[in-house]
Amino acid sequence: MRVEALAVILVQGVVISEKRFSKESLTAFACDVFKSGGVRLHDAAQAADVLCTADEWGIRSHGLARLRSYHEMLKQGRINPLARPHIIKELPSMALIDGDNGLGLFVGVAANQIAMRKAKNTGIGWVNVINSNHYGIAGYYAAQGLSEGLIGLSMTNTPPLVSPFGGSGRKLGTNPIAAAFPTNLESPIIIDLATSAISLGSVENAAREGRALPENCIIDSLGNLSLNPDDLFQGGSLLPLGSGEAMAGHKGYCLASLVDLMCGVFPGAAWGPYVPPFLNDASMQNAEMGKGIGHLFLSISASAFEDLDAVRRRADEWIKTMRSTPPISGFSTVLVPGDPEHTAASYNSKNGISLDAFVQEDIQKLAQELDIVLS
Amino acid sequence: MRVEALAVILVQGVVISEKRFSKESLTAFACDVFKSGGVRLHDAAQAADVLCTADEWGIRSHGLARLRSYHEMLKQGRINPLARPHIIKELPSMALIDGDNGLGLFVGVAANQIAMRKAKNTGIGWVNVINSNHYGIAGYYAAQGLSEGLIGLSMTNTPPLVSPFGGSGRKLGTNPIAAAFPTNLESPIIIDLATSAISLGSVENAAREGRALPENCIIDSLGNLSLNPDDLFQGGSLLPLGSGEAMAGHKGYCLASLVDLMCGVFPGAAWGPYVPPFLNDASMQNAEMGKGIGHLFLSISASAFEDLDAVRRRADEWIKTMRSTPPISGFSTVLVPGDPEHTAASYNSKNGISLDAFVQEDIQKLAQELDIVLS
Repeated sequence: MRVEALAVILVQGVVISEKRFSKESLTAFACDVFKSGGVRLHDAAQAADVLCTADEWGIRSHGLARLRSYHEMLKQGRINPLARPHIIKELPSMALIDGDNGLGLFVGVAANQIAMRKAKNTGIGWVNVINSNHYGIAGYYAAQGLSEGLIGLSMTNTPPLVSPFGGSGRKLGTNPIAAAFPTNLESPIIIDLATSAISLGSVENAAREGRALPENCIIDSLGNLSLNPDDLFQGGSLLPLGSGEAMAGHKGYCLASLVDLMCGVFPGAAWGPYVPPFLNDASMQNAEMGKGIGHLFLSISASAFEDLDAVRRRADEWIKTMRSTPPISGFSTVLVPGDPEHTAASYNSKNGISLDAFVQEDIQKLAQELDIVLS
Repeated sequence: MRVEALAVILVQGVVISEKRFSKESLTAFACDVFKSGGVRLHDAAQAADVLCTADEWGIRSHGLARLRSYHEMLKQGRINPLARPHIIKELPSMALIDGDNGLGLFVGVAANQIAMRKAKNTGIGWVNVINSNHYGIAGYYAAQGLSEGLIGLSMTNTPPLVSPFGGSGRKLGTNPIAAAFPTNLESPIIIDLATSAISLGSVENAAREGRALPENCIIDSLGNLSLNPDDLFQGGSLLPLGSGEAMAGHKGYCLASLVDLMCGVFPGAAWGPYVPPFLNDASMQNAEMGKGIGHLFLSISASAFEDLDAVRRRADEWIKTMRSTPPISGFSTVLVPGDPEHTAASYNSKNGISLDAFVQEDIQKLAQELDIVLS
């Protein structure tokens, strides 16, 4: 690949590169990286699409920023490149899938397709996956059935990083919840939120830039509130969503618990502090406590009860109603869930996708190491 | 009824009465009040059980504190006392129910029973209700199938009181999400949370006692942050969960939206600002924007994929793991979702249920007005 001198600019506090890539070229690159780790072409292409969609949607923390970690896990044998996800148990509207310790990025898509097929056949499809790995952005899966008139929900448990309300120590993941709802003329509604007070990516960015964190977001290893992002990486924990003076941290704890119960405890994946870490050593894995990361995919036919167009039109009205809310001081407009993703995707499809400077540097290094072209 | 001179004591900032009632006597009283509003015995008894379970579980804001409002709505013809909920559309694992504008407190139970039956037959039951009214505590429904090995989820939309993230004006309800998970030796896990930063009940209590609110919980009618609880009742709004310095209010907004989309927009109940108010006049009802309040009941057989005991035992392990977390400063122990409800229920079943002084006064007045005995 060409190594270029890259001017960098500062946008919204994060150093990003001026260079922009087409989604196609990034996807082709990520696909080649997965293939170099032994993943079959079809699976690698699917995984690359999930990953690069995160960057396209502006969710940089879950895109190419993670490519090296996936690559390392494949190289270390922590992820099975030739995994064949298979059905353990099936009912007309439900299934339990064993992900065969494959890349969550393609295991998730395969499982979600089963949920979607069941929703088309029976109105609803609930599919749990065990023995999987990180599946990227939860919203990708929720949104996958939109064009077919399917409402999508997805959640996954993730490695421990969040303390229970009132406690000190990592016992739950940032356990995201995502949903997507089809519309008529408006862009579809896409909901995707971690159940922690702040994302790991935001803490990492603050650490990189030497900034203090907002209040009530993390505690240090001793359980004291901290504004220093480095305290998280020295044994601290993220606090659950809602933490702060209003003492609503029990709500974030409840939501993270809900995700862990549905994705881990119910189907028999690993749960809570036993969810395997992303890249660190695998010593904390404990087979007794469940198998791999767990995902849930829930697909609902929006036309299960009535004409699809009526539902789509109601969603449009709902969007217009929310958008018409007068903004408060500090806001120029009231957004609808999914707006940031649609705005980023629209801009990036015209102008190309930009990456954080450290990510671009990282993938350029990866390209050199693996002798893969990144154009 | 006997009118007694009641000594009042101050517990946790709320004036409660020293008098304690058995759940049976409160339920019999509430049942009589519903019957006096024209509700059939069976439906009245069911509604009374939901209401008094809230007090038994320590969720005072949703128990007898609301009995007069239900009574007034029945008297005003806003709720149909003789409602016959009926199925509009049914699939093996799904149903849409028209609540016939009945008391949500028994319409909800009837619909949830259909969801539970479907879960027993097919592994999963998803039941939407439209044209209903307030159904009390969401956790009641989620917990209803626990003894039969069913995981329960429930949500409902509620009248507008919460502003979208970054906006000024009531566009969404406090839209709660509840879930319950069966256990083996431990008490079951019960999750029940409103998606607002603070509950309406907490703001009402603060107003009654002249206390300031925590920061980042409400805005006034002009969209300014306020600590004055009275500002809510003069056209202000609750903020969504996560509001505050960490700027995670979009997460609460997303969750409230999720509930509104699943309970209102999808099945065709009223949604967002068009959800009918609890007691105020009905002028804002708009038939074009959907029918009545909407609920969702989702029941999952915990044994859909494997032996029920294995799932129950995993839940016990999960509980022990969370409970073993060392508490941080200001906390004596780390709780598990459902602990406060189990603790209150256990205490109240031994000692009787106490009520807030203003609630006791109110139901005593109601007893006199309707000539019903409250023992």
